[in-house]
Amino acid sequence: MTSRFNLTKEHPMPLINVQLFEGRSTEIKRELAQALTAEACRVLGCGKDAVDIIFTDIKRSDWARAGELWSDK
Amino acid sequence: MTSRFNLTKEHPMPLINVQLFEGRSTEIKRELAQALTAEACRVLGCGKDAVDIIFTDIKRSDWARAGELWSDK
Amino acid sequence: MTSRFNLTKEHPMPLINVQLFEGRSTEIKRELAQALTAEACRVLGCGKDAVDIIFTDIKRSDWARAGELWSDK
Amino acid sequence: MTSRFNLTKEHPMPLINVQLFEGRSTEIKRELAQALTAEACRVLGCGKDAVDIIFTDIKRSDWARAGELWSDK
Amino acid sequence: MTSRFNLTKEHPMPLINVQLFEGRSTEIKRELAQALTAEACRVLGCGKDAVDIIFTDIKRSDWARAGELWSDK
Amino acid sequence: MTSRFNLTKEHPMPLINVQLFEGRSTEIKRELAQALTAEACRVLGCGKDAVDIIFTDIKRSDWARAGELWSDK
Repeated sequence: MTSRFNLTKEHPMPLINVQLFEGRSTEIKRELAQALTAEACRVLGCGKDAVDIIFTDIKRSDWARAGELWSDK
Repeated sequence: MTSRFNLTKEHPMPLINVQLFEGRSTEIKRELAQALTAEACRVLGCGKDAVDIIFTDIKRSDWARAGELWSDK
Repeated sequence: MTSRFNLTKEHPMPLINVQLFEGRSTEIKRELAQALTAEACRVLGCGKDAVDIIFTDIKRSDWARAGELWSDK
Repeated sequence: MTSRFNLTKEHPMPLINVQLFEGRSTEIKRELAQALTAEACRVLGCGKDAVDIIFTDIKRSDWARAGELWSDK
Repeated sequence: MTSRFNLTKEHPMPLINVQLFEGRSTEIKRELAQALTAEACRVLGCGKDAVDIIFTDIKRSDWARAGELWSDK
Repeated sequence: MTSRFNLTKEHPMPLINVQLFEGRSTEIKRELAQALTAEACRVLGCGKDAVDIIFTDIKRSDWARAGELWSDK
């Protein structure tokens, strides 16, 4: 497919940061990294070496929605 | 007020990240989340459900100004 | 108040990033910067020189919730 | 599945930022948002309303690897 | 030097984001990318292929210190 | 040099975030902060008071390349 081929040549280089509540296991992160990388490559038409993913754990007491910490909800 | 009404309809969706030195208590963060959310809603004319706030604690040994770590100042 | 005085001495140094949909005027950002700075100083007990705020405009076609771009909602 | 059920109750709340070279179309971002959201929900066991994705376009002249701008490679 | 050799083996993988006021030329960014990469490699003991640098231009009207936009100072 | 002088007057204000694998000592970060600040000032033509650097430690189990966590490589 032409547009995908062009995307490949253009190196889309996705760098993905995933912020999520702490407590996910390494097994879950491993599976999520594989899944997000596979989908990014499929949609963007790039090789998987081009994909970086960084997970950032957030404490529920460090995230607020509607002015209320998640640890208080 | 018309412009505020339009802003509301446009969903400004503020996502606020606050990086600050570690050591602030959950009580302080709870109060700060409430205060920043209230002001964002007042100025942007949005509902508070639209406001997300994430706090990121930074160690004084991980932040430098003028080439010097804050833990060394 | 003792704890607030200590916080002041500890330089909480809030660095606040506000991501929001593009289209807010400079007047709105100016007012929001003032308001968030004032509240951060009040709650954290720091001088306003310690507060940095950066606004990042996001296009509605660059933000998705529930798998749908906001520009499509 | 018990652990997935627990994760759901714990609200993992993934907030995903995707930095990539500018030039991807809205159609590609729409498809990528859908795909990443679906995979995040499947692996983390959360509802799709919990998933936010923000795309950040980077110019090739604003990204360097090995000390060389991608626009120069 | 042993510790540097170990750091090399441990892949420190620095990913450097530089936010700065818009208006710097590509020539300046090219020179800055080279210089920051060289220093990161020297201090961390890693190969330059491990270093990524992303520049993010910020408008003076999008950055406030002490509650005042830089464009107003 | 004129352009450098102008850059100085324009306050480039570099705010540098360095994400790297955890395990670097405070001594290494101190040296890196000094080195990156010096080079940013030299290239951008700004005073060192204008330079902020924040280090963010990343666990090898929180960073994936090519869909594989670095802790698994």
